[in-house]
Amino acid sequence: MGDDAALLNIPPGQQLVVSTDTFNQGIHFPAATTASDMGYKTMAAGLSDIAAMGAQPLAVNLSLSLPEPDAQWLAGFAEGFFELIDQHQMQLTGGDTTRGPLSISVTVMATVPAGKALRRSGAQPGDRIYVTGTLGDAGAALRILQGKLKQPARRRKALINRLNRPTPRVATGMLIRDYASACIDISDGLTADLSHILTQSGLAATLHMDQIPLSKELKDCLHAAGGWTIPLNAGDDYELCFTIPADRQTALEKRLTAKQPPIHCIGKTETGHTLKLKTPQGTTKTIEPTGYDHFRTPRTPHSQK
Amino acid sequence: MGDDAALLNIPPGQQLVVSTDTFNQGIHFPAATTASDMGYKTMAAGLSDIAAMGAQPLAVNLSLSLPEPDAQWLAGFAEGFFELIDQHQMQLTGGDTTRGPLSISVTVMATVPAGKALRRSGAQPGDRIYVTGTLGDAGAALRILQGKLKQPARRRKALINRLNRPTPRVATGMLIRDYASACIDISDGLTADLSHILTQSGLAATLHMDQIPLSKELKDCLHAAGGWTIPLNAGDDYELCFTIPADRQTALEKRLTAKQPPIHCIGKTETGHTLKLKTPQGTTKTIEPTGYDHFRTPRTPHSQK
Repeated sequence: MGDDAALLNIPPGQQLVVSTDTFNQGIHFPAATTASDMGYKTMAAGLSDIAAMGAQPLAVNLSLSLPEPDAQWLAGFAEGFFELIDQHQMQLTGGDTTRGPLSISVTVMATVPAGKALRRSGAQPGDRIYVTGTLGDAGAALRILQGKLKQPARRRKALINRLNRPTPRVATGMLIRDYASACIDISDGLTADLSHILTQSGLAATLHMDQIPLSKELKDCLHAAGGWTIPLNAGDDYELCFTIPADRQTALEKRLTAKQPPIHCIGKTETGHTLKLKTPQGTTKTIEPTGYDHFRTPRTPHSQK
Repeated sequence: MGDDAALLNIPPGQQLVVSTDTFNQGIHFPAATTASDMGYKTMAAGLSDIAAMGAQPLAVNLSLSLPEPDAQWLAGFAEGFFELIDQHQMQLTGGDTTRGPLSISVTVMATVPAGKALRRSGAQPGDRIYVTGTLGDAGAALRILQGKLKQPARRRKALINRLNRPTPRVATGMLIRDYASACIDISDGLTADLSHILTQSGLAATLHMDQIPLSKELKDCLHAAGGWTIPLNAGDDYELCFTIPADRQTALEKRLTAKQPPIHCIGKTETGHTLKLKTPQGTTKTIEPTGYDHFRTPRTPHSQK
């Protein structure tokens, strides 16, 4: 800080990983989102991209546009923003604060041993498809905030916390980089994001619906929340989806400790070009990716990123 | 592109230099600015920060918020944006396109030999203060666009071109890094930006007004444009201001070729804390930095960054 640009040392043998994410008020945040949650979530989204590459966070540049100087808002924002910066021992190395409609853009920098970064393109036929944590909580929370789903206070709170305070899976990303053949973070929805791996790896896949991990909170309201489309297609979970060669599954599972979120095998890649879904009833559906496209889908100002 | 984040190689012995700049419509751009000029100028501002560190451009991440998809606007934007990317043989390594009020944020990455980056804090008493190119053209252009200054078509065009298409002084920055003791780019105005060098180096300075380089176009309308406040205090010129130890002046001046913009010595640093200005009449004024502060100064939507 204090110069025109930040100056960073990249240790020898490491590559630089850089990701930029932008969140705009009225588009990416439900109206009631607090400044603290905005700070936290923008940083979480940036770190989630870094996690998907298997990289170690190093630094962040922040660009913040605010309609007016607002000390209270800034204090709240900083609280959420620095929670993750501190947790991951990163530096805030610069950025720009300007006047304008509320917009937050973070560029997260990270390092990864040369040649070790996880890519979307490395999956092979027969690889097992895994996800971290549970899927769909953020999607259900969005329905709650949109007034489309009524839930008891405790469940409501747990789900909304998952929308506003997702945990970027940084440690898991670094751990799986020695095992996984491809990885992506689930920001736009499982089918949309897995489709990126499949397209870039030139593969098809079959997912087993009953193996998709759901939280207790979501299980208890899945039907009311909209059914399986929520864990399959809603975004904002910021879990990782990755592929592992079958002969490495045991080795990876042994490396996981209680510090990492649970991982679940939900399917398998194969030759071909489609994404198939086995329902709990044993039928197979070929599904279209319906994740969020920022310009294609008409939507309300409350829709998610 | 195609993964969650960009992956870059930093050559051994080099440090990474990173700068983020954000431009918002209605704040940083006069209303009539074309998409192409917005693309060019955002990139120019980012590269100017890199130039001020003496670094070599490597890559850029772009974050673009647009109210609506607009192919024509995007084509224009890309034209201006890629003009500088191509010129400096950079890669566009990623970014984010989202819906929102028009906002452009670029994060430029660059490299510099370890320990060689130019800083704001290195000036010593007695160093000579230099600037590249000419100052004040962009400030005069802004007055024209605000309807406060009427000029003949040719002069008008030349000045507005300097506002919309500033040349980031990348090659000069890399050349002077072996000679300069401190450097900054002039984005907020000469006195404001030089003050950053003085504050961070713990120094005072005297500037000679009649040595500040002006373009022929500005000389011909200086009084009408507002007088010396324009080259002294208006921003957006994106020239470099740097300090050189007196015994290195000759060596540096010999290194400059016709490919670089002319440089001019406009003053000298000294011990103390003030910025003094010698007028052409021989009087001395102590001047307050009055460069642009993004939140302090009330201003019209047409005011400059």
